[in-house]
Amino acid sequence: MLSLMSIVTLTTDFGLSDWFAGTMKGVILGRCPDTTIVDITHDVPRGDIRSGAFALWASCRHLPKGTVHLAVVDPGVGSRRPALAVKTARCFFVGPDNGVLSWALAVEKIEAAHRIENQALMLQPVSATFHGRDVFAPIAAHLACGGGIEEAGPAVSDFERLEWPEPRQTRDGWLGEVLYVDQFGNAITNLEAPTGARERSTELVTHRGARCPLEAFYESVPAGQPLALIGSADLIEVAVNGGSAAAQLGLTPGTEIRLVETAR
Amino acid sequence: MLSLMSIVTLTTDFGLSDWFAGTMKGVILGRCPDTTIVDITHDVPRGDIRSGAFALWASCRHLPKGTVHLAVVDPGVGSRRPALAVKTARCFFVGPDNGVLSWALAVEKIEAAHRIENQALMLQPVSATFHGRDVFAPIAAHLACGGGIEEAGPAVSDFERLEWPEPRQTRDGWLGEVLYVDQFGNAITNLEAPTGARERSTELVTHRGARCPLEAFYESVPAGQPLALIGSADLIEVAVNGGSAAAQLGLTPGTEIRLVETAR
Amino acid sequence: MLSLMSIVTLTTDFGLSDWFAGTMKGVILGRCPDTTIVDITHDVPRGDIRSGAFALWASCRHLPKGTVHLAVVDPGVGSRRPALAVKTARCFFVGPDNGVLSWALAVEKIEAAHRIENQALMLQPVSATFHGRDVFAPIAAHLACGGGIEEAGPAVSDFERLEWPEPRQTRDGWLGEVLYVDQFGNAITNLEAPTGARERSTELVTHRGARCPLEAFYESVPAGQPLALIGSADLIEVAVNGGSAAAQLGLTPGTEIRLVETAR
Repeated sequence: MLSLMSIVTLTTDFGLSDWFAGTMKGVILGRCPDTTIVDITHDVPRGDIRSGAFALWASCRHLPKGTVHLAVVDPGVGSRRPALAVKTARCFFVGPDNGVLSWALAVEKIEAAHRIENQALMLQPVSATFHGRDVFAPIAAHLACGGGIEEAGPAVSDFERLEWPEPRQTRDGWLGEVLYVDQFGNAITNLEAPTGARERSTELVTHRGARCPLEAFYESVPAGQPLALIGSADLIEVAVNGGSAAAQLGLTPGTEIRLVETAR
Repeated sequence: MLSLMSIVTLTTDFGLSDWFAGTMKGVILGRCPDTTIVDITHDVPRGDIRSGAFALWASCRHLPKGTVHLAVVDPGVGSRRPALAVKTARCFFVGPDNGVLSWALAVEKIEAAHRIENQALMLQPVSATFHGRDVFAPIAAHLACGGGIEEAGPAVSDFERLEWPEPRQTRDGWLGEVLYVDQFGNAITNLEAPTGARERSTELVTHRGARCPLEAFYESVPAGQPLALIGSADLIEVAVNGGSAAAQLGLTPGTEIRLVETAR
Repeated sequence: MLSLMSIVTLTTDFGLSDWFAGTMKGVILGRCPDTTIVDITHDVPRGDIRSGAFALWASCRHLPKGTVHLAVVDPGVGSRRPALAVKTARCFFVGPDNGVLSWALAVEKIEAAHRIENQALMLQPVSATFHGRDVFAPIAAHLACGGGIEEAGPAVSDFERLEWPEPRQTRDGWLGEVLYVDQFGNAITNLEAPTGARERSTELVTHRGARCPLEAFYESVPAGQPLALIGSADLIEVAVNGGSAAAQLGLTPGTEIRLVETAR
């Protein structure tokens, strides 16, 4: 038999303090022993589907072709919300059909989408509270070891999609919003750098009027001062050199941010 | 030489902020390079042997046959408490002989139990504070690579066992207690669902009189309301939909909980 | 092609709550699939180069020969600080040239040191904020898969070194300082146990006069009492049995500590 070397990533809100993530890994390795498991994060704020969707979107492009991405942020676990497995041109996605996969899927070429309903692939009896272990880990292992996605359950023509908030053009620039606040208080927005922006003449203005010049790196401004940067996901983020922009400027997901371009 | 593909799990109270867990992994991989290491958790509350024992018990059944389970919650490190290695019909357990292994071992068929005393298998000189690195990681690697358990040290006929608190039957149901509070504030009890329980007519009643109906999933009750669920370890847990039962209802390990069955 | 089995360790201040560490792992596995990745820690206090250097120094000796150690504590990311790759007789080190590698390197036999400047080895376009993903992970994968270090960029004759504070001899012992405070509040000093020290007659005295007898293990003193121990890195640490020495005795990195030997 061909030794398949495959990767499964995990993005959950299970935290690391209990045995939940480790147990999912045990189930995956029991069913597909050669898997390399990569934790994206287990610290998505509990039940925060948008933050989970963002973390998956920001990371998945950097994993190799063939990777199985498993994301479980699932406040409706145990209820009748469907479970989803998707095959794209590059990789696989597995998780609850509540939008957590949708931002990552929006930039992929989808080849197949199936509801996960095949009880024979699940860990029996399926618990009411831990589908990460009983439903999603087994199907991820199935896909990682080369099993067909059509065995998961019936094909579906669509799935839950979270809206990606598009910035709106204004008289002097763009109106956007904060999408994600990272653990250091950097506030990632939905704003991209305007093409040909001369960096020194672009700034982000927060809802409270704080002006954050677009700079090339954190230490471009004195410690404690706000700035804007083109972050690692190509989106502009508001930061404070050596501090927390979220705390200092009162930024949370959804906070409005304006991008203003002024003459040099 | 046969390439052995084996798994070592880690359950400790070392936390993830320092270099302790990573160093144990280095020692294991240096002595058994093909090992796949799975973190169960490193966030057992410091020195809390019962919580460590519970995490190991709840997770170990989901790891494949042959896995070596290493658990270090060891307030007596450096003193004369013995170190233990156990072979069961399914897998191996390694850790201090202070009860941390005992709940997992209570449901296994034990084939051999040895004290770890063989200095030649340890990392020398053995430190006074880090037996995880110097004593337990090397013996786990030894077992993961197929080494004999009898090389660890002399066979022992018994080991330290934590008492598992059994629920007591009462006039109208059962009296149990909280065994473990997870990081989300779900309080896992020692109560199992009575056979044939009609779910809507069973409830858990806390020490302060809060009534928690046994439901099928979190969202069965409005946000902020308490409920009871059959958790992923087949034990009934008290939860609050979208909140922390431990904080809201004042539950900690040892808190008494009553299970009451009423006519529908 | 020869299957190379290699280890890359990660020591960063990226935390585990976002997708940063997982993304670095994706980049490494995409470029060197057989790598085993070991997290030393991602919880170095943000921008604290000395604590990162200490964690790397304390752990790296316990990883096997050939390991690639990647350390990113990099407050100057995006500025012109150079990036460094070093080959020693035992292993490799990759990180910003700001001193974070220097304590580990001080005990290694250096065979080659190169600036990382080869754009062809980096993930393009290189972001301003995430050189861990775009610069350091790719070069670590390159080295893990047997690539030549000279391909990284020009050889350099020296690199940034943090001073290791040496203890000073005094009339009745030694004057040292706290180097690192671990997550449990143990304060690791730069003091080593004097040769032939009769343990019961040596004590550490804190800046506020607390006397901490050098003992063999935590439980040698009553719960809540301070003591000193020879820690797992062979340095004397100040601890409190069952408590936090840092909180109870007011210890932080840099706090002066005296070692005093008295007649028995």
